[in-house]
Amino acid sequence: MSVIDELVKNNEAFAAGFDHERQPPSQPARRVAIVACMDARLDPYEVVGLTIGDAHVIRNAGGVITDDEIRSLAISQHLLGTEEIMLIHHTDCGMLNVSNEEFHQLLEAQAGQRPPWHTMSFSDLEEDVRDSIWRIKESPFIPKTDSVRGFIYDIATGRLEEVT
Amino acid sequence: MSVIDELVKNNEAFAAGFDHERQPPSQPARRVAIVACMDARLDPYEVVGLTIGDAHVIRNAGGVITDDEIRSLAISQHLLGTEEIMLIHHTDCGMLNVSNEEFHQLLEAQAGQRPPWHTMSFSDLEEDVRDSIWRIKESPFIPKTDSVRGFIYDIATGRLEEVT
Repeated sequence: MSVIDELVKNNEAFAAGFDHERQPPSQPARRVAIVACMDARLDPYEVVGLTIGDAHVIRNAGGVITDDEIRSLAISQHLLGTEEIMLIHHTDCGMLNVSNEEFHQLLEAQAGQRPPWHTMSFSDLEEDVRDSIWRIKESPFIPKTDSVRGFIYDIATGRLEEVT
Repeated sequence: MSVIDELVKNNEAFAAGFDHERQPPSQPARRVAIVACMDARLDPYEVVGLTIGDAHVIRNAGGVITDDEIRSLAISQHLLGTEEIMLIHHTDCGMLNVSNEEFHQLLEAQAGQRPPWHTMSFSDLEEDVRDSIWRIKESPFIPKTDSVRGFIYDIATGRLEEVT
């Protein structure tokens, strides 16, 4: 049995207990979009106390801002009414342990070619949060940037620290 | 008090109850990466019964595969040992309600320019899941593609249906 088979089995139990009366609208109730790292140790719902219907949650390796996060945030604000953006990076991030050149070399060795994208790894966590905030504020496609704030989640303590 | 302020306050309660003894490794225990839509009504942890430390979770508008998801999946497999990929799209997705041309026109009207990226909206949910699977399998940078499977989450019933 593969892991995905087990997850599908878990879903049967979830669906059996599903509250069919509870149908939140597609517009996030808290009008906030979270952009967080994909890290397995970070569950944004638990970390900031979100529940179903509250927020858009966008995640990738590092919680960085590329064109695809701008796309998602533009859709979130223009089509679904969110107004605040909360970035969550974290301590002990895998993106701190590899350089763009190292990862490109690894891919070249294993895949026979270098990727067309930058690895988006970083050496300074706070600087990377500031860079992510800057990328959002610079984008002409994100209309509401008064409340774009960045945080570092401490994997060892569960605590968020704001980067100012 | 902004919504982000409230979420930071929620985090204080979370951190106060944080189990400092429980430190899962950065490698996902279930060796699986989930790629899901950012939709506020879809919490992948609940839907497939994941817990902290289990899986990478990658999310964007639609749960689609662009260069940034390939980047995240390449890092997930090459650097952090995941082997399976589970895609979760869903019914009533906002990406079904807008065309690329419509969204580009809206951005042109509000931002004065068209974005350099495609909106990645779609008109057929199952076809889009198949397209996403195909994009992963075609990529030279994702080494393990034997177990790439796509599902549609039914917002009204809580149930996952596999797209074959």
